[in-house]
Amino acid sequence: MSENPSTMTLVIIRHGESEWNKKNLFTGWADVDLSETGRQEAAEGGRALAEAGFDFDLCYTSYLKRAIHTLQIVLDNMDRNWLPVIKSWRLNERHYGALQGLNKAETAAKYGEDQVKIWRRSFDVRPPALEPGDDRDAHSWPAYRNVEPENVPMHECLKDNIARTWPYFEEEILPQMRAGKRVLIAAHGNSLRSLVKQFEGLSDEEIIGVNIPTGVPLVYTFDQDMNVLDKHYVGDPAVIEAKINKVANQGKAK
Amino acid sequence: MSENPSTMTLVIIRHGESEWNKKNLFTGWADVDLSETGRQEAAEGGRALAEAGFDFDLCYTSYLKRAIHTLQIVLDNMDRNWLPVIKSWRLNERHYGALQGLNKAETAAKYGEDQVKIWRRSFDVRPPALEPGDDRDAHSWPAYRNVEPENVPMHECLKDNIARTWPYFEEEILPQMRAGKRVLIAAHGNSLRSLVKQFEGLSDEEIIGVNIPTGVPLVYTFDQDMNVLDKHYVGDPAVIEAKINKVANQGKAK
Repeated sequence: MSENPSTMTLVIIRHGESEWNKKNLFTGWADVDLSETGRQEAAEGGRALAEAGFDFDLCYTSYLKRAIHTLQIVLDNMDRNWLPVIKSWRLNERHYGALQGLNKAETAAKYGEDQVKIWRRSFDVRPPALEPGDDRDAHSWPAYRNVEPENVPMHECLKDNIARTWPYFEEEILPQMRAGKRVLIAAHGNSLRSLVKQFEGLSDEEIIGVNIPTGVPLVYTFDQDMNVLDKHYVGDPAVIEAKINKVANQGKAK
Repeated sequence: MSENPSTMTLVIIRHGESEWNKKNLFTGWADVDLSETGRQEAAEGGRALAEAGFDFDLCYTSYLKRAIHTLQIVLDNMDRNWLPVIKSWRLNERHYGALQGLNKAETAAKYGEDQVKIWRRSFDVRPPALEPGDDRDAHSWPAYRNVEPENVPMHECLKDNIARTWPYFEEEILPQMRAGKRVLIAAHGNSLRSLVKQFEGLSDEEIIGVNIPTGVPLVYTFDQDMNVLDKHYVGDPAVIEAKINKVANQGKAK
């Protein structure tokens, strides 16, 4: 339960480096695992939370193994393996459509850095859609067999992402927070940016410049009306700054 | 969903070797992790299930990391990380009381093999109880902070174990099976023996000789009245037989 019963604390953590982050590929809903570096980032995040005295009652993650494994490693390092974990496809990364599996730098060289920045960071411009029958179409994947077909995307912009993450947050997660539960969410760069935009009331332009570093716990304190009272990272500030810059540079042609 | 809608399939798996299994120590509620061998056993169990075409809708495990990690490794190897997992202390291993942390062979040398066999395998003789304030008393452990204190044991016999596992199975797991869900349970030698005794209607004497091998999926098929229609292990029969004999020999003085 929160220290101050009138406030609510939420911790969000972006998964560590994945095998495709390492190769600089667009990932989206491709179910790529963490790299060894990503596992270490998650372990550091978990240790930082434990050292800072954090504890949780309930955890959420996506259907994608890079986020699930990040959460499992965080809980391992907090000795909190037994905490309840709820997985939802609504916390999945933004679906990158036909860009999934393509190299970010090569895509920038081909279409221009500006176009890639638009696809990566614009609020409402979707990347090119998958064609039906493409191997990357998640409609036939077992993980989504219980999801209504119209909710399985073929491509998404950030606005689309918010349209699935925010109702889930408001309907499933927020009531738990209001009931006094300390919540931890392990998810993805864009599904977390969706939440951050809503938390902070950022404009469609302001969210473009927001980068969430990998494997670094970000702590929000809210009042009961969801006004942000405090926001801070848990970890070494120099490491965090370097990580934020690294994410910002990924879309540039080499 | 089951192939035949009038039958229900359940798979149970005992965690792989733990660090204390390796040292031949009584473990109980001590939250000891898997050994490297245990991780390999879990991976083999997961691969065997995948190769045999098994799939699940819902998974259950205990609050103890050796079972939680076993389940996670099984799901990794089935590419089913996204499946829902429910953790319950009611599926924990039998509480070994004051024997927890003691060497099985040394305990046998001191008290005699017969006494140890009684403590390990009798239906209703509890091992010596923990004293209140003992470091091994789970009442002060974070994992059990939401469990009613009277439900946190200081020692348990198999009868006590059944008294917490069976109502959980009947009230929480069985309704999911009746609703057509394919269930996987990753748990412990004695919490699974508790379920097996009830599934098969074994007498208090018959259950004494039952050994469940580590990391080997055991598949039950039931009719809607929970009569056992079929029971079989998934994996190499010679390996399974060797594992069953290994468990039976653990209580002997060296």
